[in-house]
Amino acid sequence: MSLVVQKYGGSSVADAESVKRVARRIVEYRKSGHDVVVVVSAMGDSTDDLIDLAKEVSPIPPARELDMLLTAGERISMAVLAMAIANLGYEAQSFTGSQAGVITDESFGRARIIDVTPGRIRSALDDGNVAIVAGFQGVSQTTKNITTLGRGGSDTTAVALAAALGADVCEIYSDVDGVFTADPRIVPSAKKIGIISYEEMLEMAASGAKILMLRCVEYARRYGVPVHVRSSFSQRQGTWVTDSPIPEDLRTSTTEPETDASMEQAIISGVAHDRSEAKLTIVGVPDVPGKAAEIFRTIAGQEIDIDMIVQNISTRDPGRTDISFTLPMADGSKAMESLEAAKGSIGFHHLQYDDQIGKLSVIGAGMRSHPGVTATLFDALSKAHINIDMISTSEIRISVVTSAELLDTAVRAAHSAYGLDTADTEAIVYGGTGR
Amino acid sequence: MSLVVQKYGGSSVADAESVKRVARRIVEYRKSGHDVVVVVSAMGDSTDDLIDLAKEVSPIPPARELDMLLTAGERISMAVLAMAIANLGYEAQSFTGSQAGVITDESFGRARIIDVTPGRIRSALDDGNVAIVAGFQGVSQTTKNITTLGRGGSDTTAVALAAALGADVCEIYSDVDGVFTADPRIVPSAKKIGIISYEEMLEMAASGAKILMLRCVEYARRYGVPVHVRSSFSQRQGTWVTDSPIPEDLRTSTTEPETDASMEQAIISGVAHDRSEAKLTIVGVPDVPGKAAEIFRTIAGQEIDIDMIVQNISTRDPGRTDISFTLPMADGSKAMESLEAAKGSIGFHHLQYDDQIGKLSVIGAGMRSHPGVTATLFDALSKAHINIDMISTSEIRISVVTSAELLDTAVRAAHSAYGLDTADTEAIVYGGTGR
Repeated sequence: MSLVVQKYGGSSVADAESVKRVARRIVEYRKSGHDVVVVVSAMGDSTDDLIDLAKEVSPIPPARELDMLLTAGERISMAVLAMAIANLGYEAQSFTGSQAGVITDESFGRARIIDVTPGRIRSALDDGNVAIVAGFQGVSQTTKNITTLGRGGSDTTAVALAAALGADVCEIYSDVDGVFTADPRIVPSAKKIGIISYEEMLEMAASGAKILMLRCVEYARRYGVPVHVRSSFSQRQGTWVTDSPIPEDLRTSTTEPETDASMEQAIISGVAHDRSEAKLTIVGVPDVPGKAAEIFRTIAGQEIDIDMIVQNISTRDPGRTDISFTLPMADGSKAMESLEAAKGSIGFHHLQYDDQIGKLSVIGAGMRSHPGVTATLFDALSKAHINIDMISTSEIRISVVTSAELLDTAVRAAHSAYGLDTADTEAIVYGGTGR
Repeated sequence: MSLVVQKYGGSSVADAESVKRVARRIVEYRKSGHDVVVVVSAMGDSTDDLIDLAKEVSPIPPARELDMLLTAGERISMAVLAMAIANLGYEAQSFTGSQAGVITDESFGRARIIDVTPGRIRSALDDGNVAIVAGFQGVSQTTKNITTLGRGGSDTTAVALAAALGADVCEIYSDVDGVFTADPRIVPSAKKIGIISYEEMLEMAASGAKILMLRCVEYARRYGVPVHVRSSFSQRQGTWVTDSPIPEDLRTSTTEPETDASMEQAIISGVAHDRSEAKLTIVGVPDVPGKAAEIFRTIAGQEIDIDMIVQNISTRDPGRTDISFTLPMADGSKAMESLEAAKGSIGFHHLQYDDQIGKLSVIGAGMRSHPGVTATLFDALSKAHINIDMISTSEIRISVVTSAELLDTAVRAAHSAYGLDTADTEAIVYGGTGR
């Protein structure tokens, strides 16, 4: 018998009919002998509806009260799901984040999980219940105020509970079949990835793949929780995120031919893209030590996360340099303002801002041992007449910034160049002179 | 400075506009120097909407989960109200029943308050906040499950908190101006009662006056909490339920002429009526000791509350008696079934059931010292050609059962007979030979 944590997103429990469908799915698991803990998001768009309601009474609602309000969404979905399961003849009990022991810090709206003490969940399981837990919420350790975890919070709740309970797998259900080698809306020939390492999934998430949030994958890696990303609308095997073999008894639910084996040998796991960033260039920074630190201290003071950084000697202006970095588009004006305010002390010439950029990343643990991966990318982009604006790499990732306009073409070119369009990834030979 | 507990019902916070109006009202109180604790019901019909949602997934939802679901309603209204107050520049914090220390037993759907430990509310007030508390809900002492208090629960929350905090007054806001001498829909000349004793209000509530639930008044009496029933749509003085003088600084908000003085001397405070009961007659019960006990033990076993009981010697059948009692119409078939099942052992002839009855009650502490009150009622009903079916009395109440059809006429006749139609209740002279 296994212990399975299943997380269902808002689209899987959008209305009473969907809730009943999910309940049947959960009961199937119970029937086959598994203990089941379910983490559930708010129904459909109900969180947005609550935000709209808040905005009607207050343009800037107090964070504590907004969290209190939003947690009503999961409270509704979890109770209704428990009812639907009970209606199928199985015992179910729902628990708020606080009752489930999800202890967080006090950062309303984006709280971090500090600890999980799932004593009541364990008891509910021991009594033969399916335990339903509200995703996205917790209780602050110090003040006992109700908190929410922010974007991707329910996935993180699920992984954190799976870790605390020592679950065999954490299943993340949504309306897509798994993690794909690229966004199928851009690359119709994109294939579902059978298995992917935590490290690769981290890079995918950090590079714009939206299926799993970065913090959730980080949590899973830290505690070694196998994550299975799959669709609640089919019985198909999804994508396993793990560094270990897939547990045998949890693997058998697939009805399709195994593609995992060949996928495991892929050098490039997938191509991710991101349209949410902008590029800021600081032109004419005096080329003396300490200036870069001054710039990034200014940015960090605004709590802005920057991504890629490039520094070049200014060709037009000896003794000065240009520094470019990418950042979330939403933080663009805040960054501009803070830098303008520090213009005198930093001593740069002016700022350039470009939010018509796109970032493409190819990710694969295999690139460590395969030279030529970078060359293949640049070659493909060149053949597609795509100009590269910035480059950054990690051990297992190459990212380039292009114009937003050409991003889709770039993604298709890269996907094709690494042989991800074909069934057999082994057909591709990487040549060239190393990375 | 006073501490005021204010309770706003669902109709007072039906939408964002109403919430803002209530927030302005609360802030006015804060400005005048009072500490304010607000107990709030779910917005408008949202509780009914949640019940409908539950019914969509389960015809008989588990009680624990239904309570979990329904408590989402107050969670939403309290957070939104706190936001609206914050938007007016005042500090406000919302608290669930559990956070506010409302400890109950484990009877889901109709939990009783065991204790109130409002430490967090006290702290919030000390920090200068308006404390907003979810009505209708609590947490069970033993299992820490979330419970709801059932009908009238938010009023009870308010009174219980007022008692625990030693508040100067508990204000119950709804969409009516107070407690009236009769239902104004039936008696257009009915007047608002300025002040009424706990005992009289208890009898009013028990006799069908719906403005305050019995349990809430019981709680107020037990702890001596002055209750002020008033409208959230006006600034008018409402009805005070108290055995003590009205606190001076809380009385001044009225803008209308004082009618309290004259009302205090009324012999009859009001006329209540109830259409929700039915009459069950057990015909031909053997007139031997123990039969009545057997009958009412059978009924009690079904958790049915009975109201009036009448026993007569059967004129047709010597050695046998007929026993009639009234009970909630909703429990009629359950009572019939249980009695039929016990027919053999009790040995009665047959059952008669009548749900076309109405109950009229006249209530007034003054009837203790004024003879003739009963005669006045019977005289008035006789003149209006209304037949009396059952009679029951308490120290300060006379109730009669009539046909449902004639109930409105009976209420008007009684209201008029006791001079409640006129401005001056002293004009009436009670004659006759005692009660």
